[in-house]
This record gives sequence, structure tokens and C-alpha cells, in this order.
Amino acid sequence: MNLFPDQLKKAIEYFSKLPGVGEKTATRQVLVLTHWDKEKLIAFSEALKNLATLEKCIECGMFARENEELCEICHHSDRKNSKTLCIVETVTDCLAIEKSGYYKGLFHVLGGVLNPLIGIGPDELHINQLVERIERLKIEEIILAINPSVEGDATCSYLKQQIKTSVRVERIGFGVPMGGSLEYLDAMTITKALENRKIL
Amino acid sequence: MNLFPDQLKKAIEYFSKLPGVGEKTATRQVLVLTHWDKEKLIAFSEALKNLATLEKCIECGMFARENEELCEICHHSDRKNSKTLCIVETVTDCLAIEKSGYYKGLFHVLGGVLNPLIGIGPDELHINQLVERIERLKIEEIILAINPSVEGDATCSYLKQQIKTSVRVERIGFGVPMGGSLEYLDAMTITKALENRKIL
Repeated sequence: MNLFPDQLKKAIEYFSKLPGVGEKTATRQVLVLTHWDKEKLIAFSEALKNLATLEKCIECGMFARENEELCEICHHSDRKNSKTLCIVETVTDCLAIEKSGYYKGLFHVLGGVLNPLIGIGPDELHINQLVERIERLKIEEIILAINPSVEGDATCSYLKQQIKTSVRVERIGFGVPMGGSLEYLDAMTITKALENRKIL
Repeated sequence: MNLFPDQLKKAIEYFSKLPGVGEKTATRQVLVLTHWDKEKLIAFSEALKNLATLEKCIECGMFARENEELCEICHHSDRKNSKTLCIVETVTDCLAIEKSGYYKGLFHVLGGVLNPLIGIGPDELHINQLVERIERLKIEEIILAINPSVEGDATCSYLKQQIKTSVRVERIGFGVPMGGSLEYLDAMTITKALENRKIL
């Protein structure tokens, strides 16, 4: 006998689609929600629905400000005239870099990396628009903050070819992470760390 | 600089109110939700809103079936004529007992235990209605499946007084849980286990 009415089953089904949430956690969460008062539940439901209205910045691909075309960074007076552009794969990569607080230039969210096997080519990543943006903003320095992988490396090479040679194109450094221990690192990271050694 | 538009912040705020979800998990979940397509997001939002329409069974206090007055158990032909009533504190306690599969009688969800300090008296728990139900259904046996605590014990004593002496009133057994180890159990549980010993 299933004691859960359809409303509960449906809500549990959706919660268990979230990362890190299994059916048991979803059930627990939904049972807690049944104790919430109706106004709060409806407000939560509205907040969720409003996520569907989320738009991407037409310039860089980050989340746009509510009811605006541009994001916080492209709006920001100190940054919109920057001549440095950091190219990342995803919005979350951009957030990670912002959190470090080191970088103060512009961003461009590619939305992925080139991967012909699953049909992601230069058109899917709108590389033409990126090249046009680089020229329009007279970007002088490009930082490729793209994760190390076969596809990531290929994407970096392709971008390097597409960008005018007068622009300085760099890729973020690879090596031993802070707090890392050589003992536990993989061979590839150690190879990269040795390749990228610097004179002290 | 906060790169999250208001829609994201609002959704993160609500998700982090759920049990076991901190701000970091909520952010991760909401960022995943931004990749969902709009139809799916709206369906999730609807499922959440529909939780507000959830009604309690007018008989026993469990979740009622969608658009109906009674719950699955009070509907069930094999059970609705049962002469045994199991009284529990919460809906989740009822679900736990159902999951064991041992009990096949009726339930009654009290919705809490007597706690005069926070203003929960017999009226708040609708004990009159419970007594009326016991008489109407000609219940012969009552199982008090109320958690052991000062308030739980007091509630059991109070219920025992209110119920006619012709009804057999029992309380669930206390002792060592299955898989438990005497070594790690608290003194109270061991005392209860010794008190509740049975002739082999």
C-alpha cells in the first residue's frame, strides 16, 4: 500500500533529480515541506518558476541581471573597458575565478568545449561571436581558463588559431595545487608541474 | 560583486531551508536547475505548489488521497473495519510502522504530544475527537506507538484515562533495538530492557 498521495510522489520525484539527493533524502525533504505554511510553499514554488526566466548576458554568457540584457560584470564601470578577457567553459568556472578575487577583467562563457563526437563544433560554441567581440572590445590579452582535457586542449588550440596574432593569448598554469602533496598526485599533474617549472 | 541575479538568490535561499541543505549545496542544486529546460522547471514548481493542496484525512490525520477526504488506510476495505487502532505522534511515525509491514489495523495521527509548556493541551491534539472515533468504530485494542519521552509518557497516561476501561490499551515495547549492542546503549534503554524481560 502506498500511503503517499500523488502530490507527494510527484514532488519527491523532482527533488530526487537534484544532485546528491536520493529518494530517501527527497522523501525527507518533501515531508518537511508538508509542514510549511501554504504562503511559504507558494513562494518557494514561485522562486523555482522564476528560474525559468533567467537570461544569459548577451555579451559574455554569464547570468544577466534581472530584466536586463547584461550581467553584473559587463555592467560594472571598472571592468567594462578592460582589455583582458578570460574565456571559461561554464558559468560555474567563472564564479570560481571571481571567488578567488584575483582577476578583474572581462569574462566570456563558451558554454562547453569543442567535441565533434557529440556534435559540438565552433558554431555551437558561437566562436564567431567571440572573435567579433574580441575585435570590437579591442582586447589585448586573453586568458584561456579552460580545464585540462583532450577536448579542452583542442579548444584552446582552435581559439589560438582564430584570434588575431596581435592579441596575447595565454592559458592558465597547470601544476601542483595549493595544499597538494606530490605523494598523492597523478603522474600527469607531476609531469605538468615539472614542465611548468619557474626560475626562483 | 555578487554575480547571482535575484532569481538565483531567492531560489538558493529557499533550498537552503531544507533539512541537510546548506548554502553551498543549495547553490549547487540551483545551478544545476538553471540547466533544466523551462517546461521541466515549471513542472517542478507546480509539483511544489501542489503540496500546498495536500489535505489530511478527516478520520485519522494521515495524508488524504488527492481530492478525497480519506486516506489510503481509511479507504482500504481490509482495514476500515479493523478493531485495532494504533496511535502515533506524526505522519512519519505512521509511515515507519507501515514500512515494517507487521501492523494491519487502523491509525490515528495525534499531531504531537501533550506539552503544556509550549501550549499543547488536549484541545490542540483533538483528543475529544479521538475518543469519539474510538467509540464510533467500536475499537477493542489500542496500541500507543508514542516515542519515549517525558511528554510522550504523560500523553500515554492521559490517553489511558480518557479511554473507556473496556478497551485494551497497550504501549509498544522498549528495549535493545535489533542490531544494537549493550556495550553502546544508554543506561535508560538498558533499564527498560531489563524491566521488559520475557520468560523464554
